[in-house]
Amino acid sequence: MIPLQNDRFLRALLRQEVDRTPVWMMRQAGRYLPEYKATRARAGSFMNLCTNPDLACEVTLQPLDRFPLDAAILFSDILTIPDAMGLRLRFAEGEGPIFDNPVRSAADVAALPVPDPEQELRYVIDAVRTIRRELQGRVPLIGFSGSPWTLATYMVEGGTTKEYARVKGMLFDRPDLLHQLLTTTAEAVIHYLNAQIAAGAQAVMIFDTWGGILTPRDYREFSLRYMAQIVERLQREAEGRRVPVILFTKGGGAWLEEMAATGADALGVDWTLNLKEARQRVGSQVALQGNMDPTVLYASPERIRAEVATILESYGKGSGHVFNLGHGIHQHVDPEHAAAFVEAVHELSQPYHRSS
Amino acid sequence: MIPLQNDRFLRALLRQEVDRTPVWMMRQAGRYLPEYKATRARAGSFMNLCTNPDLACEVTLQPLDRFPLDAAILFSDILTIPDAMGLRLRFAEGEGPIFDNPVRSAADVAALPVPDPEQELRYVIDAVRTIRRELQGRVPLIGFSGSPWTLATYMVEGGTTKEYARVKGMLFDRPDLLHQLLTTTAEAVIHYLNAQIAAGAQAVMIFDTWGGILTPRDYREFSLRYMAQIVERLQREAEGRRVPVILFTKGGGAWLEEMAATGADALGVDWTLNLKEARQRVGSQVALQGNMDPTVLYASPERIRAEVATILESYGKGSGHVFNLGHGIHQHVDPEHAAAFVEAVHELSQPYHRSS
Repeated sequence: MIPLQNDRFLRALLRQEVDRTPVWMMRQAGRYLPEYKATRARAGSFMNLCTNPDLACEVTLQPLDRFPLDAAILFSDILTIPDAMGLRLRFAEGEGPIFDNPVRSAADVAALPVPDPEQELRYVIDAVRTIRRELQGRVPLIGFSGSPWTLATYMVEGGTTKEYARVKGMLFDRPDLLHQLLTTTAEAVIHYLNAQIAAGAQAVMIFDTWGGILTPRDYREFSLRYMAQIVERLQREAEGRRVPVILFTKGGGAWLEEMAATGADALGVDWTLNLKEARQRVGSQVALQGNMDPTVLYASPERIRAEVATILESYGKGSGHVFNLGHGIHQHVDPEHAAAFVEAVHELSQPYHRSS
Repeated sequence: MIPLQNDRFLRALLRQEVDRTPVWMMRQAGRYLPEYKATRARAGSFMNLCTNPDLACEVTLQPLDRFPLDAAILFSDILTIPDAMGLRLRFAEGEGPIFDNPVRSAADVAALPVPDPEQELRYVIDAVRTIRRELQGRVPLIGFSGSPWTLATYMVEGGTTKEYARVKGMLFDRPDLLHQLLTTTAEAVIHYLNAQIAAGAQAVMIFDTWGGILTPRDYREFSLRYMAQIVERLQREAEGRRVPVILFTKGGGAWLEEMAATGADALGVDWTLNLKEARQRVGSQVALQGNMDPTVLYASPERIRAEVATILESYGKGSGHVFNLGHGIHQHVDPEHAAAFVEAVHELSQPYHRSS
């Protein structure tokens, strides 16, 4: 392996000293980039893009060629696991993801297999290998998965939903069945992430997009518990370095302390939290990743710069902060605004590290 | 006026002793009731239903005829104010509310009038009068309004949105303009709620549906500040009784202390908070209203009952709790489940008040 030229991101996740605050953007390989749209058009469909390692590699690298980002993230979708379990994922125009075979009955749950990542999810693991090779050590590569609870919502609902009536119906009336589903899914996530790490992912992130729609009690029992199991069983070292794990529960600001107690290295935080208070709450237990409102990128470059300055000041001096948006970059953002954002983080963050 | 036969709701909002925990449901007059759907069909459109005081009264009373609820809430829509300002509200099938004349420019903001509730919103105030008469003192009537920030999101976006790009664009790049818009809207809300109180509303609730999408700093500056102005200027006494004010910011659990400091009598809380912790945080400053996840109503009556028991236990002994859902009742809920919910609250809450 070629040695890593920029390890700012990995160091910050482990709260080690850095020269400036590292930055990347959730969904940085995406529709706001014309070159992404061109590759996506060539692929024919979103799933074709995900399942072709060369194309997935191409779009993963596109934002790095534009902006001096400190990390790359595997281009894929969180729903690859349920697809590999036989639920058959497709993306209907304007409707979002749909599973042809949702999980509704005890028989459906019992029949769920734990996919072998090197078999049914080979296209993802191959993409990781291809991207690592093509990155040539420029920046670290982040692997990822959805959380078991978040995957379960799609698996039971069969697609996106506003009410979560089916999955919450299962939670309230058949918690045993939901636990069985989550146990199988957590097992699949563990194998999937460990395969990504073995293939070259240098950090991994667990996206718990829908943990925030639960009560505190249900969050603990049906989402956090399974994320903690995953953290526990991940391969935390590779190529002689620690592989940091980032947990991100959207809307989970109330539960930072409990998330930190899982043993994760870092927590993603959305913009509804003040970073200073979040840092006080977690102390030196974990690093924090976030947390600019992605809609700030619609504002002027001057305003973006001002917001970056505010967030840097809020976190304060010292390491342990990875700058990011609080959610994925929106599709109508001008790439020049994303450039202004990345530049502002690098430039304005230096004084926060100089004295260290 | 006929004397009030059941004032449990008003007493609990003021943290006075009650015999059992009062209960009502957000959106209790709504599509889950077949009789509502029949009236709605007769009206021809949702707006016809809102603008006809007799029909608005009819649907307001429907849930009270089915369930022993402790409060009625005016049937109306939060978007009546912008409509009365000339934005022209309509409801497109499957698309939600749309304003034909959204507010986008400085000229649009400057041109916004403060409607006279007895003129442009006369149909709402007449509905309040009609409902009070027809209630015959059975239970108190709640009036309501959207918060200035929540109204502004619809006014600037022109309808519902996922990204809030336009209104946040204004917030970031033209905060002066947004403040001007919010000042006019807050003025309109004050007149509107005071007219509802003068016409017979015995408590009022401010719905801040979209305050939770803001950063803590922006929530304070663009939402809470204007709600505090409203609380300050409301007529807080009528018919020899205090008129309690309830503030509800969906997803605003992190800001309860600041909301309580506005001088409101009670705060609405959604299900992402534990009621015991919420109570500890606000102390005796305000009452709390909530907070069962509305999807629990899809579960079995036994499970609904168990969840009610858990929430009652979480709040604990003594007054200051109005039982409610953490958001509006969903449209596919079986009315029998709503009945089980209301019955469970009344029955199971007695021990929490007996010793007092």
